[in-house]
Amino acid sequence: PHMQLFVNGFACKDPKTAVVEDFYFSGLHMAGNASNKQGSAVTAVNVAHIAGLNTLGISLARVDYARYGQNPPHIHPRASEILTVVEGSLYVGFVTSNLENKLFSKVLNQGDVFVFPQGLIHFQCNCGTKKAIAIAALSSKNPGVITIANAVFASKPSIKDDIIAKAFQVDKKIVDHIQAQF
Amino acid sequence: PHMQLFVNGFACKDPKTAVVEDFYFSGLHMAGNASNKQGSAVTAVNVAHIAGLNTLGISLARVDYARYGQNPPHIHPRASEILTVVEGSLYVGFVTSNLENKLFSKVLNQGDVFVFPQGLIHFQCNCGTKKAIAIAALSSKNPGVITIANAVFASKPSIKDDIIAKAFQVDKKIVDHIQAQF
Amino acid sequence: PHMQLFVNGFACKDPKTAVVEDFYFSGLHMAGNASNKQGSAVTAVNVAHIAGLNTLGISLARVDYARYGQNPPHIHPRASEILTVVEGSLYVGFVTSNLENKLFSKVLNQGDVFVFPQGLIHFQCNCGTKKAIAIAALSSKNPGVITIANAVFASKPSIKDDIIAKAFQVDKKIVDHIQAQF
Amino acid sequence: PHMQLFVNGFACKDPKTAVVEDFYFSGLHMAGNASNKQGSAVTAVNVAHIAGLNTLGISLARVDYARYGQNPPHIHPRASEILTVVEGSLYVGFVTSNLENKLFSKVLNQGDVFVFPQGLIHFQCNCGTKKAIAIAALSSKNPGVITIANAVFASKPSIKDDIIAKAFQVDKKIVDHIQAQF
Amino acid sequence: PHMQLFVNGFACKDPKTAVVEDFYFSGLHMAGNASNKQGSAVTAVNVAHIAGLNTLGISLARVDYARYGQNPPHIHPRASEILTVVEGSLYVGFVTSNLENKLFSKVLNQGDVFVFPQGLIHFQCNCGTKKAIAIAALSSKNPGVITIANAVFASKPSIKDDIIAKAFQVDKKIVDHIQAQF
Amino acid sequence: PHMQLFVNGFACKDPKTAVVEDFYFSGLHMAGNASNKQGSAVTAVNVAHIAGLNTLGISLARVDYARYGQNPPHIHPRASEILTVVEGSLYVGFVTSNLENKLFSKVLNQGDVFVFPQGLIHFQCNCGTKKAIAIAALSSKNPGVITIANAVFASKPSIKDDIIAKAFQVDKKIVDHIQAQF
Repeated sequence: PHMQLFVNGFACKDPKTAVVEDFYFSGLHMAGNASNKQGSAVTAVNVAHIAGLNTLGISLARVDYARYGQNPPHIHPRASEILTVVEGSLYVGFVTSNLENKLFSKVLNQGDVFVFPQGLIHFQCNCGTKKAIAIAALSSKNPGVITIANAVFASKPSIKDDIIAKAFQVDKKIVDHIQAQF
Repeated sequence: PHMQLFVNGFACKDPKTAVVEDFYFSGLHMAGNASNKQGSAVTAVNVAHIAGLNTLGISLARVDYARYGQNPPHIHPRASEILTVVEGSLYVGFVTSNLENKLFSKVLNQGDVFVFPQGLIHFQCNCGTKKAIAIAALSSKNPGVITIANAVFASKPSIKDDIIAKAFQVDKKIVDHIQAQF
Repeated sequence: PHMQLFVNGFACKDPKTAVVEDFYFSGLHMAGNASNKQGSAVTAVNVAHIAGLNTLGISLARVDYARYGQNPPHIHPRASEILTVVEGSLYVGFVTSNLENKLFSKVLNQGDVFVFPQGLIHFQCNCGTKKAIAIAALSSKNPGVITIANAVFASKPSIKDDIIAKAFQVDKKIVDHIQAQF
Repeated sequence: PHMQLFVNGFACKDPKTAVVEDFYFSGLHMAGNASNKQGSAVTAVNVAHIAGLNTLGISLARVDYARYGQNPPHIHPRASEILTVVEGSLYVGFVTSNLENKLFSKVLNQGDVFVFPQGLIHFQCNCGTKKAIAIAALSSKNPGVITIANAVFASKPSIKDDIIAKAFQVDKKIVDHIQAQF
Repeated sequence: PHMQLFVNGFACKDPKTAVVEDFYFSGLHMAGNASNKQGSAVTAVNVAHIAGLNTLGISLARVDYARYGQNPPHIHPRASEILTVVEGSLYVGFVTSNLENKLFSKVLNQGDVFVFPQGLIHFQCNCGTKKAIAIAALSSKNPGVITIANAVFASKPSIKDDIIAKAFQVDKKIVDHIQAQF
Repeated sequence: PHMQLFVNGFACKDPKTAVVEDFYFSGLHMAGNASNKQGSAVTAVNVAHIAGLNTLGISLARVDYARYGQNPPHIHPRASEILTVVEGSLYVGFVTSNLENKLFSKVLNQGDVFVFPQGLIHFQCNCGTKKAIAIAALSSKNPGVITIANAVFASKPSIKDDIIAKAFQVDKKIVDHIQAQF
């Protein structure tokens, strides 16, 4: 987008000036660098990367998982997700809303497909000893990602520790300890 | 709804059989019982309580806060929220998406209004010594609620403790300890 | 919104420049001045008052009713409404579409909740001897209000009196008389 | 639709059983009977008449106007309208929302096209001495029609005359007089 | 629209500056020039012609058919269509999706109405010896038109003839022959 | 879906009876059988295969291309598409609407991503000598596919050859010849 209107309001180019590159992105075959604490890397391809996705309600992502790596519990505030395992095995799951908070989980192997409904907390975990790769599609040009642990324990500025302590029903020292990890 | 199609598919009554009670709910003046661990109680008024809300994209809730009570960090997977303080004071906040995870927070007094955009983690905390009351509106007939702590640490069955431990970057013993509180 | 695209096209701020005040409004605890012909006052809180409501599909309003005051028959062209009585009693109603034009009405007391489906003519009337207060939520950031009497009898310029006379099946003198009241 | 889910929830047929008649309606070339008090007749073609319109967000109508006839002030709660004059001349208009309540009006001749935005009060009036015909399209499979005079003065049961009297700022006797016409 | 945001993002005028001409178009009573190879002419009335259609999800078109003329197989990428025959007779049809590819077709006479669901290939053919006229409504302010033969055989630049030859299962010479007609 | 409401109206299960298999599909790692005239095979994963996709606005597909195989020109009536090349190389393109009918095309290699906007005619062609594989995501639970050649030349029953002959500006014998290939 040449003029940025944010969240769900990107402006479109004049179609007369559109070029094929406006619908193109390169590099999804390259592994993201999963050498980090969580052992995973997400390569997103959304309206920030392909201007032509504007107004089209869809985007893509590749996720690389180191062995024992995981894409930790997170939500997409504006999208549902459908994911397929390209390589390796993943233990995946999502938790339903209150009051049930049911965990739906499954071990996925190559070629398996799984759905994470909009706004639910979900995760993928490479419980195997080899790297894993997944391709995920999301129902928004700009789905957003909220990693639960980071948003709760590492926001800027921090959420007060007594709020988190009460929410998680633990001592404030534990909250402080967790906050110190990030 | 007389025939239940779920999530976003409730069936409507034949309008010829609609009665005024299909658009009515009673009791939002009564305080919910906030004598619980979090010190808050939500009284929801959505399509489960007023059949006539079906297809209308809106619902209401009353939240009661005991002194020092809080509505702990949670998300609505299918709705944005606008809240007004009817009585007392609340410290409220929401955290933006990755990578920034900025905390937008504010102390609200009676008559203040605050907005929690769709799918973002947010909370309200009664930091005062008197009870507080808020009225909130949500942009869905069936917004859903996901209390973060409960969904992560008290799902049924549990999310494996090593997944949570890595996500929150703490020892599994701490995770087990937190899970034991719920 | 820093750049105004109207009706349903407000532009969003660059999220990097968003501040907490973009999600905040103050003053809904203050009674509107209901000392007018209809004996009611609406204090709206929508995208014109809270920029952060843009794209979120929701807004709020407080309505104050003097004794015997009323929020006269009106419609919201772009929203459904859910209302709760905070203080006093209200006689409320809406009329369904042609051909039935059924009136659904009810006396609401404190804590009662009522739904006015999108685009239907509805009203609230304080039939009691004490003031009344309601909080209403609407399913649009910019719902609009059309007071029927004003739009029909007091538009600028006026609708020709013979059109109104035929529509309401009365003499033009009566139309002229009504138009003169506004 | 073979099974009726109402307002916006008609069920679809199994596509394997769909027949061409599910997409077809006959008779829009025939004049409606405009020999009535308003001097107009609307022949609607919506999902009630063509089952295949379900989910498609569009419908059609023909309006016949006797000389001096009018389609009196009305709203469509769920649709915008675009109208073209097939024969004769029409004086048309719509009134914008509060606070302006501006009347946008124009004399349309054969081949002229006019737009009535969603939920606004609008009318068409055959001010000429010959009959007129218009074709209108609406942005909903089930747009609904609310004739203002009928909904306000002839609902079943009636809106209390003191509510209307105050809204229209006239004596109750005038309201009773108008109500008696319907 | 005074500032052009394309495809589905036209900017709205400041309503204070709106004038009645923003909701008006003239000339749909005049026959389009159908003296061309296909023997038909479409006069469209969409957001490009009436700025006030912006955001309203609807537009109109008049189609003129010379005798034996046709509106050749085409699709609207962003709209469903409802059409009525104003004069003459038309043989119309649409083809359903894979795998069935069923043809739903019918001869329409004056006053008949037919629906073409979103994105399906459809056509109208004046099989009679007199001219024909239709009015069509579309469920988008900017529905778009893709004439199949032109998009496949006359794009700029051309689709490679071996791709088309394989798709249509014919010799490349035939493809080259067809491409040469345009 | 346990009860089928078609096109966009599948009914949801009672969430209490939902099981993990409702969100799961297996087999996308297996190559489709591309030994056919077009030399390609699409393995779709939509609401027909995963009931839990209902209402979520997204689906997935794998496309296998034999060497020199192609996914011939086609449209999705209810979805945009984003595709990534998993193996091999593809020459892809889409054609814009009338009047321009511009071809946007590009050779994609492994890891490249391309977008096909809703309702536009598009194709992928394996112009190389090795097989190719792509994963595509679509912005609908039930996007539909219309292969242009099949819908135009092989509908059941056939579109009359003189309509197609005029549309494609060729002799009826050529049309009959093409129709005979299917």
